Amino acid sequence: MNESQIKAIIAQTLSPRRFQHVCGVVDAADLLAKRFGVDVEKARLAAWIHDYAREWPVDKWYETAKERGVDPAFFEVAEMLHGPIAASMLEDVFGLQDEEIAGAVRYHTSGRAGMTPLEKVVCLADYIEAGRDYPAVHDLRKQAEADLDLALASAFDNTIRFLLDKNKPIFPLTIVARNDLWRALKDRRTL
Amino acid sequence: MNESQIKAIIAQTLSPRRFQHVCGVVDAADLLAKRFGVDVEKARLAAWIHDYAREWPVDKWYETAKERGVDPAFFEVAEMLHGPIAASMLEDVFGLQDEEIAGAVRYHTSGRAGMTPLEKVVCLADYIEAGRDYPAVHDLRKQAEADLDLALASAFDNTIRFLLDKNKPIFPLTIVARNDLWRALKDRRTL
Repeated sequence: MNESQIKAIIAQTLSPRRFQHVCGVVDAADLLAKRFGVDVEKARLAAWIHDYAREWPVDKWYETAKERGVDPAFFEVAEMLHGPIAASMLEDVFGLQDEEIAGAVRYHTSGRAGMTPLEKVVCLADYIEAGRDYPAVHDLRKQAEADLDLALASAFDNTIRFLLDKNKPIFPLTIVARNDLWRALKDRRTL
Repeated sequence: MNESQIKAIIAQTLSPRRFQHVCGVVDAADLLAKRFGVDVEKARLAAWIHDYAREWPVDKWYETAKERGVDPAFFEVAEMLHGPIAASMLEDVFGLQDEEIAGAVRYHTSGRAGMTPLEKVVCLADYIEAGRDYPAVHDLRKQAEADLDLALASAFDNTIRFLLDKNKPIFPLTIVARNDLWRALKDRRTL
């Protein structure tokens, strides 16, 4: 399936509001991919697909994730399931067989230890696309002009602080992801 | 080995400053155990032993943890190793065979999902003993008068915020522990 066919499926699947968000993520992923030397086509495809299952009811998330053997770690927080679910449907729904795109879709909300540059780009694009509006977003966009790791580590930490303030569950993979990024940033500075 | 023999070993092993902290944790654990209906003797013993390996050099932590088969999850943050190391030495050093005390020693810094009341008491005692002095400690002591889970969840969140502010690694088990506590607190309120 080519990009415009995939875009058409996403446009049919999502609410107009969510579709507009996804268009923003595609634009941001395109820009970040060019900026940081990542495969632009893969970044755009992963961005189109990342929220394919975002608007499903919680029950359908749980059922489908069980059927498709999604890693039990993702069940810790229900909202984290839509990424791995969409990744598991890449071939069935979009006719794509691409482990790199699958990874970028699977980990776009959670992150993970050892994220690939493509995974970082899609994840950060989701945080800073033009439609996003929250107190930290301007700083994150500024950081994203220069440093993919720093911007993404800060974005994760911003989310963790938000969840702390609300007494809401935090996803352990996100912790591992931000630990890994801060460690890499520290190592870079010490070199 | 009885309590005074254990106390003597700890007094010989630790620096005076650390020994004083441990005495504070024993007092706090005693008080919390009585308050929340937990085995006071076990709480006191776990408190005496919890920091047995705290002042070892990092290399010795890593070596001993590998030798003794400490769960690889604890290697994520070096400072987390001293708990499971001390727990693994309970029988060899203190002649104690007690899985409940071992758990309270093992998880006293990290916490974990499904903490036992004894584990919660020792962990919280470590946060609020009389020698501790940090901005949130008064609120935590106040919460600890009424609600073990709320005080411990708040203590974990306070640590996580501190580590976020310093761009330091956060221990994933602590995230799982605080998610679990906040979920239990929410369920209690909804009942």
